[in-house]
Amino acid sequence: MSYVTYLESALDGTHLPADRVQTLHNDRPLWVRYDLAAVGRAMTKEAVSRRPPTMWRYRELLPPADDHSIVSLGEGMTPLLPCARLGEQFGLRQVWVKDESQLPTGSFKSRGLAMAISMARQFGITRVAIPTAGNAGGAMAAYAARAGMEAFVFMPHDTPAINQYECHLAGAKTFLVDGLITDCGRLVREGKEALGWFDLSTLKEPYRIEGKKTMGLELAEQFEWRLPEVILYPTGGGTGLIGMCKAFDELAQLGWLADERRPRMVAVQSDGCAPIVRAFESGQRFAEPFAGAATVASGIRVPAAVGDFMILDAVRASGGCAVAVEEPRIREWMRLAARLEGIAVCPEAAACVGALERLSASGWIKPDERVVIFNTGAAQKYPEAMQVELPRIAKGERVDWRQLASG
Amino acid sequence: MSYVTYLESALDGTHLPADRVQTLHNDRPLWVRYDLAAVGRAMTKEAVSRRPPTMWRYRELLPPADDHSIVSLGEGMTPLLPCARLGEQFGLRQVWVKDESQLPTGSFKSRGLAMAISMARQFGITRVAIPTAGNAGGAMAAYAARAGMEAFVFMPHDTPAINQYECHLAGAKTFLVDGLITDCGRLVREGKEALGWFDLSTLKEPYRIEGKKTMGLELAEQFEWRLPEVILYPTGGGTGLIGMCKAFDELAQLGWLADERRPRMVAVQSDGCAPIVRAFESGQRFAEPFAGAATVASGIRVPAAVGDFMILDAVRASGGCAVAVEEPRIREWMRLAARLEGIAVCPEAAACVGALERLSASGWIKPDERVVIFNTGAAQKYPEAMQVELPRIAKGERVDWRQLASG
Repeated sequence: MSYVTYLESALDGTHLPADRVQTLHNDRPLWVRYDLAAVGRAMTKEAVSRRPPTMWRYRELLPPADDHSIVSLGEGMTPLLPCARLGEQFGLRQVWVKDESQLPTGSFKSRGLAMAISMARQFGITRVAIPTAGNAGGAMAAYAARAGMEAFVFMPHDTPAINQYECHLAGAKTFLVDGLITDCGRLVREGKEALGWFDLSTLKEPYRIEGKKTMGLELAEQFEWRLPEVILYPTGGGTGLIGMCKAFDELAQLGWLADERRPRMVAVQSDGCAPIVRAFESGQRFAEPFAGAATVASGIRVPAAVGDFMILDAVRASGGCAVAVEEPRIREWMRLAARLEGIAVCPEAAACVGALERLSASGWIKPDERVVIFNTGAAQKYPEAMQVELPRIAKGERVDWRQLASG
Repeated sequence: MSYVTYLESALDGTHLPADRVQTLHNDRPLWVRYDLAAVGRAMTKEAVSRRPPTMWRYRELLPPADDHSIVSLGEGMTPLLPCARLGEQFGLRQVWVKDESQLPTGSFKSRGLAMAISMARQFGITRVAIPTAGNAGGAMAAYAARAGMEAFVFMPHDTPAINQYECHLAGAKTFLVDGLITDCGRLVREGKEALGWFDLSTLKEPYRIEGKKTMGLELAEQFEWRLPEVILYPTGGGTGLIGMCKAFDELAQLGWLADERRPRMVAVQSDGCAPIVRAFESGQRFAEPFAGAATVASGIRVPAAVGDFMILDAVRASGGCAVAVEEPRIREWMRLAARLEGIAVCPEAAACVGALERLSASGWIKPDERVVIFNTGAAQKYPEAMQVELPRIAKGERVDWRQLASG
């Protein structure tokens, strides 16, 4: 039994029934709406706190009609790691990293795809396809395999190698496309007619966002329902940012939040691909496609996002901002976070460290504000960004220990 | 306050005090012993079940004297994933994968190194070194960084690239050695004199095993204190296998287990490096070094293990066995598990899938026995084992959808 009442067009508010497969409405995404009064009667904070620590503990706020639909690889609550040294580096006293790399397939994409695949199973779908710039393909392939579905993945030819391999390993038919994720998206649209697959593109079905929403639900619970002041979120398709704001709205309506304050949401991009930042700065609600998109942070190499207006609305409503950081410094921020805190942040999260540097220096973030950075995936999935030539010790070599220690 | 009473030589039973730094005794490892009667009075199953779902929930059975010593990256309880399709493949009805890839740094090594580094901090150690064949280096570097310690890592020159990069990313001084992990171990011993680092080699300090022990504690709790019949464990240094058996012993003494039965422990190796299997088959208690060790499963490329007799004792006492699987089939078993279950098992765990095939075919594992495979790390950390050339779609290419679907 689900508490979903209907789906609602994010652009014009049109209601659509939730008891059948839905995709976009007038080419724009749909929200999933719940009977929150009934949810509030059925679920208490105390009950939630006693449930298993997975994203499914917020069951009544999630769309599956039947637990048997749920396709799971054990999506645990991810740790919220205090980062005193990283904060200190920028004169901040309360910085956390929410480490999404500890999810199945090593990235936050598991949340959205676990939900999307579960709902696809609920509706009897057996063939799915996705365009992906990075980790979404691996997550989709894994959950599709777990559900016994046939899966197709289209990724830019220069997607990190591990993302390519993990899709193939899990049995997805995987293709490298000369182009960007937008070109991959076009192929998924074209193939749909011929092959009848279901399109799992970001926001093109309503449920991935409900999976990503659990980041916000967890964060609220981990902060004992008193939300942090600032959230730095690497923004490609933006589902996570949108999903978290939706989570906060729903929690507010349930009366679960300790106060009225909401985090200022910061959409972080690289200056190598910053369509949302440009639109934010020029006061637009819709973003122009970003020409020549190039960044080592493959997950935010998204030159055009179908949910652009949803991201920009959410950022503005929160009193947040959109920040583009210097592409050439991303590796430096990866090292900084890893060396100070032992957290192998991915390039996308490293961009957030850059935003932390910028926004603390400018005074936009105050020293005592509680700040959360999302580490959306494991650095280990980005050998291209980590690559290094290490010193070698030959067989029988007489090691100069002092030099070794200082080197 | 810790419940540790003393350390005990695993070979001759000598007692050593636990209130100072200890390494080996007569070149052989030490057990950590507890006042289990006091532990039993201080900790109940019910209390444990209400604690946060991390490896630290078994606090009284763990060595840190002070919570402030604990160095954590959020080591969550790892999921125990039912694998009906994988089991069915081999005529088995109850197969699970315990997915250790969802730990920090993407491998089970986090458990041991979180504990070893915590204890090193407790004793005021500030410089640590480790020889590693794979994931231990990355885990050590991460926890050392988290603790603010200086770290040195020595790894065979052909260790998977990601393991090399992750150590460097976290700031460890990392060296590639022409040779195997045993050669790396020699360098760590030699450098100790000159540089005064603490040697975190497998079993050369008593606490990594206490971290690995939590795999057994979790497993027992997840099976509601009724242990499974068979555990398949990829065996390099063997700390995990030894640690789990120690966990089961301690739980038995606490009276927490539902019955007397213990899992039959299966030490799984590749026939490219099978010293433990050879010793097991020839009835030896100590293993001869394995010449020409070569396997894609880098974590079990350990030609000589300091805890050989502890592994062999534990396997034999449990009624288990040691199995070497065909090296050339490891990639096939990786694909099998990933495609049937959506779990990206590492090459070491794939070897366990091979053992499952062998032992079910021979009847050693019965159809209704409960079997657990440990996925000790994320396949994503092994690009060398996953590598594949994917089909490419050129710009403007007219796609033949039917061919694409069948290809």
